[in-house]
Amino acid sequence: MSSNLSSASHATIDQSGMDALIKATATDMEAVNALILSRAESHVEMVPQIARYLIEAGGKRLRPMLTLISARMFSDETGHQINYAAAVEFMHNATLLHDDVVDESEMRRGKPAARKIWGNQASVLVGDFLLGQAFMMMVETGDLPALRTLSSAAAIIAEGEVFQLSKATDLSTSDKDYLQIINAKTATLFEAATKVGAMAGQASSAQQQALATYGRELGLAFQIVDDVLDYGGANGALGKNTGDDLREGKMTLPIILALAKADKNETALIKSALGDTKADQKTFNDVLNVITKYDALEISIERALKYAQNARDALTELPPSKTRTILADIADYCVARVS
Amino acid sequence: MSSNLSSASHATIDQSGMDALIKATATDMEAVNALILSRAESHVEMVPQIARYLIEAGGKRLRPMLTLISARMFSDETGHQINYAAAVEFMHNATLLHDDVVDESEMRRGKPAARKIWGNQASVLVGDFLLGQAFMMMVETGDLPALRTLSSAAAIIAEGEVFQLSKATDLSTSDKDYLQIINAKTATLFEAATKVGAMAGQASSAQQQALATYGRELGLAFQIVDDVLDYGGANGALGKNTGDDLREGKMTLPIILALAKADKNETALIKSALGDTKADQKTFNDVLNVITKYDALEISIERALKYAQNARDALTELPPSKTRTILADIADYCVARVS
Repeated sequence: MSSNLSSASHATIDQSGMDALIKATATDMEAVNALILSRAESHVEMVPQIARYLIEAGGKRLRPMLTLISARMFSDETGHQINYAAAVEFMHNATLLHDDVVDESEMRRGKPAARKIWGNQASVLVGDFLLGQAFMMMVETGDLPALRTLSSAAAIIAEGEVFQLSKATDLSTSDKDYLQIINAKTATLFEAATKVGAMAGQASSAQQQALATYGRELGLAFQIVDDVLDYGGANGALGKNTGDDLREGKMTLPIILALAKADKNETALIKSALGDTKADQKTFNDVLNVITKYDALEISIERALKYAQNARDALTELPPSKTRTILADIADYCVARVS
Repeated sequence: MSSNLSSASHATIDQSGMDALIKATATDMEAVNALILSRAESHVEMVPQIARYLIEAGGKRLRPMLTLISARMFSDETGHQINYAAAVEFMHNATLLHDDVVDESEMRRGKPAARKIWGNQASVLVGDFLLGQAFMMMVETGDLPALRTLSSAAAIIAEGEVFQLSKATDLSTSDKDYLQIINAKTATLFEAATKVGAMAGQASSAQQQALATYGRELGLAFQIVDDVLDYGGANGALGKNTGDDLREGKMTLPIILALAKADKNETALIKSALGDTKADQKTFNDVLNVITKYDALEISIERALKYAQNARDALTELPPSKTRTILADIADYCVARVS
């Protein structure tokens, strides 16, 4: 297990994959960023204020880059990938705005959450605006299969978020429930991002499927790593959002794996801490001790590595290319974040 | 002015138009209702619970009926109107769920608002789910002009709601601002509802435009009447939601018209009451006295009657038919609600 961890945590491998992705998509991303800014415009001041605050907060823009690189794999790009990439980023940002309201978050990407500045009300409505704009950008391409992919993703993501909400603090949440939640709320958008990219590249149906599978498995790995990072990651390093999932009562993999092995007292401890918005550092540390006692972070990371490997495996359906190598490296990058 | 009012308040004219609309669309509405229920399904229990609670609460379903009757006007229906009608109703219900969160509403359609039972969080997310499902139903028809109409409506509605929010308790809100708000938040969906109905009927471009104009003007009349009803309507009859707009600080036409004529003390009174969530019955009555002193409800109703007349005028572009008569009567009905 530790050898897996150390191979994934090799800092050089990690950053070079991301750097290559950024470089390969730089020109297209300029067009995407321009489109994003123009579609966040409105005569209603609060709309661009909130949209730009969120958009410019410095997210990685991994999803739109995945759309662009997936289109780039093929020689016959339609140009639609610019609209799809912007739409995917808008869908993601709409979800973030609504998630922050749902989770009552204080911070997002190291800055106060939009809802703390403009209020829950504006966050809900500007999220709706971004979702509407995302659909408009998709419709403009006139490509119905891509429209189907993205609109169905919107419904599935919301459904996954409701499922997650309904399972909050529910100690009987299973490993399978968790997989279903992250599949819906995270992997669906990654899958849609790579699939519509392939569609914009006029890829064959088999190639679209390969990139869709890559996106889905990557998304699963990505979310598990996020959930591990919320407990400090492989090194137990505590960041500014550490412990949010526990306070929000989210039944993530580290908690589920720990509960499966916990004794009565440990279970009682986790139960009392889950969803306790006032849980202090000591409570968090106590829960983290149970989690680490049962290797729940390491087992979670192993799981993420497996999904990252599935993502890489899906790429073998595609001809070898520099682009394919970048995608393979990104699968490593997504897990390496954890170390 | 009073003669206009009494003609609009004639109870027989009123209900017969609505009854005729219900009868004319009954068969199609069965298909729409079945589609609505099937698309509100989910393996996540809370989704159909909330969706059905809202959908079955007994709204008039005016918007989907308008879509169906607009398609019915033409002999060459594609069948798409069923999907559009269900999508329009889902968009409307998504807006209601989010509005209740934004307005912190206690009640909706005479029952506790969904957010009071399942919480704000679930209301936000199930609204998102309904929006996603609405887009899926539209995409299934494969009709791009209709998709453009409905997706652009989604963005404009949200933008209008943000504008309304940004103007809350703002005494400088103008008549023009108000018109812009209700145009975006209400008339846009009415316009989209009738326009996509005409598209499903394979109407000519001029006919589509006539029905779009009808829908927009009807929507304006409808919203003004809603805003008058919030101050008790023409008779000052107090219903269960009366005063909500005042407590929420909404700058609706009755308030704007009253402020334009109010003296210093009256302005101060309105200012202190607007947005005061704890405003009592006496405060409301005092504000209502200012509103009635300056005939603000009657002038508002006159304005609604003008829009209803515009709606009827737009119909003259269409050949006379039983269907056209129903639409004309519905314009009367929407204003007659106020009496």
